[in-house]
Amino acid sequence: MPEAVTYAKGLEGVVAGESRICRIDGQNGKLYYLGYPIEELAASSDFEETTYLLLYGELPDNRQMASFSERMRSSRDLSEPVLAMIRAFPRVAHPMELLQSVISYLSGYVEHRIHHSATCNCRDTLHQGAQVATVLAAWHRFREGLEHVPPRPDLGHGANLLYMLRGEEPEEYEGRIMDTALVLHAEHGFNASTFTARVVASTMSTCYCSISAAMGALYGSLHGGANERVMKAVEEIGSAANVKRFLDNELDRAHKIMGMGHRIYKAKDPRAVVMEKFLEELSGRKNDYRYLEILKELERDFRARMEEKGKPLYPNVDFFSGAVYSLLGIPAILFTPIFAAARVSGWLAHILEQRVDNRLYRPASIYTGAEERHYVQIEKR
Amino acid sequence: MPEAVTYAKGLEGVVAGESRICRIDGQNGKLYYLGYPIEELAASSDFEETTYLLLYGELPDNRQMASFSERMRSSRDLSEPVLAMIRAFPRVAHPMELLQSVISYLSGYVEHRIHHSATCNCRDTLHQGAQVATVLAAWHRFREGLEHVPPRPDLGHGANLLYMLRGEEPEEYEGRIMDTALVLHAEHGFNASTFTARVVASTMSTCYCSISAAMGALYGSLHGGANERVMKAVEEIGSAANVKRFLDNELDRAHKIMGMGHRIYKAKDPRAVVMEKFLEELSGRKNDYRYLEILKELERDFRARMEEKGKPLYPNVDFFSGAVYSLLGIPAILFTPIFAAARVSGWLAHILEQRVDNRLYRPASIYTGAEERHYVQIEKR
Repeated sequence: MPEAVTYAKGLEGVVAGESRICRIDGQNGKLYYLGYPIEELAASSDFEETTYLLLYGELPDNRQMASFSERMRSSRDLSEPVLAMIRAFPRVAHPMELLQSVISYLSGYVEHRIHHSATCNCRDTLHQGAQVATVLAAWHRFREGLEHVPPRPDLGHGANLLYMLRGEEPEEYEGRIMDTALVLHAEHGFNASTFTARVVASTMSTCYCSISAAMGALYGSLHGGANERVMKAVEEIGSAANVKRFLDNELDRAHKIMGMGHRIYKAKDPRAVVMEKFLEELSGRKNDYRYLEILKELERDFRARMEEKGKPLYPNVDFFSGAVYSLLGIPAILFTPIFAAARVSGWLAHILEQRVDNRLYRPASIYTGAEERHYVQIEKR
Repeated sequence: MPEAVTYAKGLEGVVAGESRICRIDGQNGKLYYLGYPIEELAASSDFEETTYLLLYGELPDNRQMASFSERMRSSRDLSEPVLAMIRAFPRVAHPMELLQSVISYLSGYVEHRIHHSATCNCRDTLHQGAQVATVLAAWHRFREGLEHVPPRPDLGHGANLLYMLRGEEPEEYEGRIMDTALVLHAEHGFNASTFTARVVASTMSTCYCSISAAMGALYGSLHGGANERVMKAVEEIGSAANVKRFLDNELDRAHKIMGMGHRIYKAKDPRAVVMEKFLEELSGRKNDYRYLEILKELERDFRARMEEKGKPLYPNVDFFSGAVYSLLGIPAILFTPIFAAARVSGWLAHILEQRVDNRLYRPASIYTGAEERHYVQIEKR
């Protein structure tokens, strides 16, 4: 056996690559895509333009944007075999399993793909990004016993997602909020799903197969799904008056408070700042302040307790996003699929970057198993 | 920007985990599963027993083996929606894309799965392993315009695979060789696909979703597919007399000779030794020595040239496996899917091991992108 070698479990602190896509300044609560502050993209860009930025590295001019948007919108429609897969998918199963399956299935549909090459054409075949929203909406409609609503090419990505879920056009402000939520979730560095996409891409597999693999990682409860659990807590709390008792109980049992704190951000997550404003806007427009009141009281009380202990903790993006989606009428089971519909643009950006200066990921491991032993016939075991 | 930090591209030499599953002694050309030398497993075990060994860490007794084998064989059948997915899959697409898709789709079918937990029940739901062979065989049959041949529970895993491909029972020796080829490919440490499976499993995603992701990595041309390229070279060479000219040409152009040399093995790959014997046996039984003669001459000539340069290089498992599969009547496009049908047992073993002492994989990265810049309205770009 080799000597014991120290190593970092989960590759914590180990540098696995260089990237020019995303910069996170956790100390100051800043997030940049290709150098642009997330607040500016949230205020002025949209999901299609942000996707262009992630894939090409620069913001498009008018002509580039029109052409890209047209291509992305015309890639939204699902083929009949994919609709059949969605229809037949077991009702008890999770839509993330379906998304992972559909995306690798779509790999087989791409024309002119140069999949065993560094010069793949996946910027031109945008089905893998565009169709995630369509698949999750179709799944939702079938599950509710409703007909599939085909996408509408005159709507932006967020508004079209709400349209396909509801079967009717959303209000302008709803479409804008949904679209910006997708911008906020489009990219976030070397997390587990993005790292998965890069590892798979490093074998020279297809973009679709790499993105499908990333979906599998995002499905894991340690990765996606935090906003779903925040909303479960919010429903359990019921009203702002119960927050103190809830926190007493949870902290007594040493439970983690979901949506508070972040491995990287030591200040307030800049995405949470935007999401909080959306929650305020939606609460006012729909005259429903229940989620907002509970979350604000939860943040206030929890932060006060933590500051007393000298452990300042701030809300992350998941703290408010579930309430925003709920007020948009989206069921909690779709929260992680919506995360995927946004992050697919970041995954694709990382896959393209990986291809430029590729090296197969093939780490070492330490053998801790049995010494040599010999096979014994089954009768003698 | 942070200071430049040295790091190893592709995590080369970086320890990413501890494992008791597989030991590779590259210097001496030895490979062990759970301490058992691969030669002994190849001589005496079969794929079902080896799968049991990988999943449980010990060889089974008679009762355990009977129960495991019964469960695995009864998990081979495909459901109607999965058969429909295979039927509708574009004929020009690759069966690896289909396998990746089907395995995550199957995740939705598993009853009593505890997928967000370290105590998953995937040892009991063996569909993900058992059905890979059925999917690849069904794909092959549909592609040939033939009917699907349902699995036969009285046949071992290798013999049943040949039966489903051909629609008739193989000779005893064919089933034995196919089954042992699966044993030889069942496990090989922290390669890119196995590492992918562990990264995805570390998020607490399901076993199926983790295996599906690993399929995506195996599909990459830098990972699976080497034996396909060996056979392409063999067909190009045509006869043993042309080997010298082929090597002159390839080495002049500084091409790599596929199937020769291995990142880890500095002696002959022990799996290649077994595969070579199978190729000899099959050549004799089928009275077809063409592949054997070309490969033996290719090995002899290439090794002589390399030894002259002081660079001893030996055949790896891919050098002979393609010829073995070809003599069993298997088309080259199925070579990587067959690799997947074997390796699925190793992936599952690594996923189970990852769950025991889990830590989310979340490496660091170095930012090399633009400094902060500001959003400009599209009209002004």
